[in-house]
Amino acid sequence: MKTLVIVAHPEYADSSTQAFLKRGQAGLENVTWKRLDSSQWPLTVAAEQQALIAADRVIFQFPLYWYSAPALLKQWEDDVLTRAFTFAGERGCLAAKQLGIVTSLGSAEQEFQAGGTEDFSLSEILTPYRAIAHRAGMQFLKPLVIDQFGYQSEAEQAELLIKYQQYLTAPQPLSFEQRVAWLIQQLKRWQTTQPAERQQRLALVINQLSANQEHLDDLKDQIKLIRQAEEG
Amino acid sequence: MKTLVIVAHPEYADSSTQAFLKRGQAGLENVTWKRLDSSQWPLTVAAEQQALIAADRVIFQFPLYWYSAPALLKQWEDDVLTRAFTFAGERGCLAAKQLGIVTSLGSAEQEFQAGGTEDFSLSEILTPYRAIAHRAGMQFLKPLVIDQFGYQSEAEQAELLIKYQQYLTAPQPLSFEQRVAWLIQQLKRWQTTQPAERQQRLALVINQLSANQEHLDDLKDQIKLIRQAEEG
Repeated sequence: MKTLVIVAHPEYADSSTQAFLKRGQAGLENVTWKRLDSSQWPLTVAAEQQALIAADRVIFQFPLYWYSAPALLKQWEDDVLTRAFTFAGERGCLAAKQLGIVTSLGSAEQEFQAGGTEDFSLSEILTPYRAIAHRAGMQFLKPLVIDQFGYQSEAEQAELLIKYQQYLTAPQPLSFEQRVAWLIQQLKRWQTTQPAERQQRLALVINQLSANQEHLDDLKDQIKLIRQAEEG
Repeated sequence: MKTLVIVAHPEYADSSTQAFLKRGQAGLENVTWKRLDSSQWPLTVAAEQQALIAADRVIFQFPLYWYSAPALLKQWEDDVLTRAFTFAGERGCLAAKQLGIVTSLGSAEQEFQAGGTEDFSLSEILTPYRAIAHRAGMQFLKPLVIDQFGYQSEAEQAELLIKYQQYLTAPQPLSFEQRVAWLIQQLKRWQTTQPAERQQRLALVINQLSANQEHLDDLKDQIKLIRQAEEG
């Protein structure tokens, strides 16, 4: 699966969030990091469209400015998502691809609800992107919301890193089993680049995760049998 | 009451809708028509902010591109609505002003609902603007939606013209009485510029409208009396 991350941040160089995310995706396979910059205009529209066609998952990544992406991304939408391209052929060029949103907030996520300072939920605010996905026949992924990155603890940032990497590369929506399988896969990849002593320790972690998963699968099978017995 | 219309259309010169609306507002008192154009950047932010401060009603006017205004308006928002400006002082610089939306659609308005081709309502799609109004302490006006202008009959366009002029200059939300009062006022203004014979005919129309309104007021008073008698 190929993922295209379209990053729109007018003050990209000064954004610690974007720097963090960029480091987070470095080394991931099949991820293309595409930063928009006003100096790229006029865009080579055909090249932008080819990049979309090549991707299975498209991510719009931006800080939320006035309840929407910065103008940079809107300009890209207006220029690249032409009718002729988006609705080409029977199903359109983007059909069956996934559209994800990674957005960072300047105010607390909990304020985005009825009665909160912002009064509207992110589901409501992001409607234009949901509508694009719907119209283009794309699957809209549950957005990854980055809640005031600057105030996050190291532990929260570490969790964000994993969530972000999963958002870019793991099946979505992500089940518990898939989450574990993804984690094992990443650890195995990482393992090969480590010194021998750490490789052994990682092997222990991987074995433990796999054993846990098998144990959970057993429990699930037992519950299934009990239910069948009750119904039968 | 002063109204500032901020027009964002990347192909303004070719837009028959915008040309129609521009003619529609010509001659209205206390209306400022402000067209955004990419050549105006970098904006003189202080001047843009002064224009907002001078207005009682601010209208964002644009064709709906991918469920939002063209990038031009978003760039204006991102540049002009700085935190320092919008949240200045106790209540902010825009508090108690009105925010209206005039948006023209490329697909039929009836498709903007659950199950329609667009699947989302315009209330849902325009959430980012509702959220701006909420956050800035502005009153959000019911949007004026222009449903596929090119397919409208002359009669529909004439109706649109009146609705547009009312959206710019009449109290909002507009009651039936206010609608009649606004119409009488416009006819009286128009009357003074007409030849004598037409002035007389217009006087007849104005008298009839006024008489109708008085008749309606009488009916309302009678209903009120009947209700009071029933309750008493």
